[in-house]
Amino acid sequence: MKVLVHIDDAEQWRDALARRLPQAEVFTSSAPAEKRREADYLAAWKPSAELLGEPERLKGIVNLGAGVDALLGNPGLPEGVPIVKLRDAGMAELIGDYVRYGILHFQRDFDRYRRQQARRDWREHAVVDKADWPVGVLGLGAIGAKVAAMVAADGFPVHGWSRSPRSLDGITCHHGDAGLDELLGQVRSLVLLLPDTPATRHVIDAAALARLPEGASLINPGRGSLIDEAALLDALGEGETEGRLRGALLDAFPEEPLPGASPLWSHPRVWVTPHMAGPTPLGEALDQVAEALLAFEAGEALDTVDPEAGY
Amino acid sequence: MKVLVHIDDAEQWRDALARRLPQAEVFTSSAPAEKRREADYLAAWKPSAELLGEPERLKGIVNLGAGVDALLGNPGLPEGVPIVKLRDAGMAELIGDYVRYGILHFQRDFDRYRRQQARRDWREHAVVDKADWPVGVLGLGAIGAKVAAMVAADGFPVHGWSRSPRSLDGITCHHGDAGLDELLGQVRSLVLLLPDTPATRHVIDAAALARLPEGASLINPGRGSLIDEAALLDALGEGETEGRLRGALLDAFPEEPLPGASPLWSHPRVWVTPHMAGPTPLGEALDQVAEALLAFEAGEALDTVDPEAGY
Repeated sequence: MKVLVHIDDAEQWRDALARRLPQAEVFTSSAPAEKRREADYLAAWKPSAELLGEPERLKGIVNLGAGVDALLGNPGLPEGVPIVKLRDAGMAELIGDYVRYGILHFQRDFDRYRRQQARRDWREHAVVDKADWPVGVLGLGAIGAKVAAMVAADGFPVHGWSRSPRSLDGITCHHGDAGLDELLGQVRSLVLLLPDTPATRHVIDAAALARLPEGASLINPGRGSLIDEAALLDALGEGETEGRLRGALLDAFPEEPLPGASPLWSHPRVWVTPHMAGPTPLGEALDQVAEALLAFEAGEALDTVDPEAGY
Repeated sequence: MKVLVHIDDAEQWRDALARRLPQAEVFTSSAPAEKRREADYLAAWKPSAELLGEPERLKGIVNLGAGVDALLGNPGLPEGVPIVKLRDAGMAELIGDYVRYGILHFQRDFDRYRRQQARRDWREHAVVDKADWPVGVLGLGAIGAKVAAMVAADGFPVHGWSRSPRSLDGITCHHGDAGLDELLGQVRSLVLLLPDTPATRHVIDAAALARLPEGASLINPGRGSLIDEAALLDALGEGETEGRLRGALLDAFPEEPLPGASPLWSHPRVWVTPHMAGPTPLGEALDQVAEALLAFEAGEALDTVDPEAGY
């Protein structure tokens, strides 16, 4: 089988994949066009429409990440080719650590101390017990469920939300529109881990933000489309004085890289990170890619992406 | 028994303690001098020399924190009065969370992203696996041991150090001078949880800093005296460019509040927090104070502070 790899550091992936699949010919997108056209499989992260349209007898695509929205929205995506996405692959723990950092950032007042430092202001804030700091996790897929469990293990009360009912040990689960309102009304930190679908677009709008308790904080390691940015800026208010929304730690944006003109860059209570919460750890990811390619080749049943559902 | 309470928010402590000890008369340091002189017990955090010298028949002191250096160094401390300090009291977990935040701050490059944000610089850094991020914990008392265990549970390899040999599950334990050198040579984040004693003063000096691997980070939720500040600034280097020492998260300083003139306030790779890593959670602390006072009164054996050893 011929495997075309496209991702940052593709050479590293190609070499490591070739070692796992000695029977395969593995090459990167910098191979000549006639080579690319022969690919049986594409293992890629955010390929261009051109690259995606090149292979003439593509039998399967392995999406080198958990989010498939960019791939499904790509006009070059050939119809009917099955897509497998990487499962968690250690990403959930990485995202979990991002979320832990974000929660402690607000619960332990690191956001305030950092602003105070600029003024040489030595002033301690009383710690709010973890028991009094409920955290909301929107999205209870593989990643959301794991992150919710990590946060609960750290001692925070956790409320989870999903479209349809779920039941998870140690998590207060809510679902549907009424459940979302219920959750928003009682969390001090809100974590967004929903997929990017038409149904989740701007789930965090002015109305949702208005439901959060005064002084709540927002952590988004998920998708940029989940937040109505104008409503977010409005809820944050201006300057250092904490508004209704205390602050936000944001890793995902509707346009990435975040444009230089975005007011988020310079807001004193917004922390911007460059979509780094959930990188795919190479070793685990490669094992999954190799496994998926062998299953494709053997004609085995695979858990493929449903383009209608969007995940 | 008559109990004199001295601490910020002493009224809150007094009332809560009086509820736990209905047989006691509890008053704060704002009570009249003749009252203070009658105190049988003093439950205090950093009392002045004057206050400490006032009670005429003091039978015991409860130090309202884990660190006794300020008390032992107080010229007003009456000789021969037994001192009990608060055990952990939930402090270890609070300090553990401070340390977790600090380690993630460096391991997940939040320090860099925060500096990048000021330049609107969207650039991701490859994550170093936790398995490749050894953490050193100096001091394996009740707090150090608990913090080391928390960090190990998070998936980081942990090296612990104490003056005399210790053995802790899941922690690579080192001891003595040679052990300290061994530890320093291999950790990416160094956490200081030693008590303030003549033996630990400036344990982190130029030589110790020079032993750390290039790019190591320092986290000090312990005592300010542990670090030679001039050597620290030297190892950090100037400006945003990471020197031999990548950065430091500091919660304790030789003089507190940290003087406005300190260069630490404005160093772009130093994060200053106002001694907030390990506050004593009130409920647990009060239980311990009540327990100690009853044991004093009943003449029971108590685990008291050894003024010679300094802890």
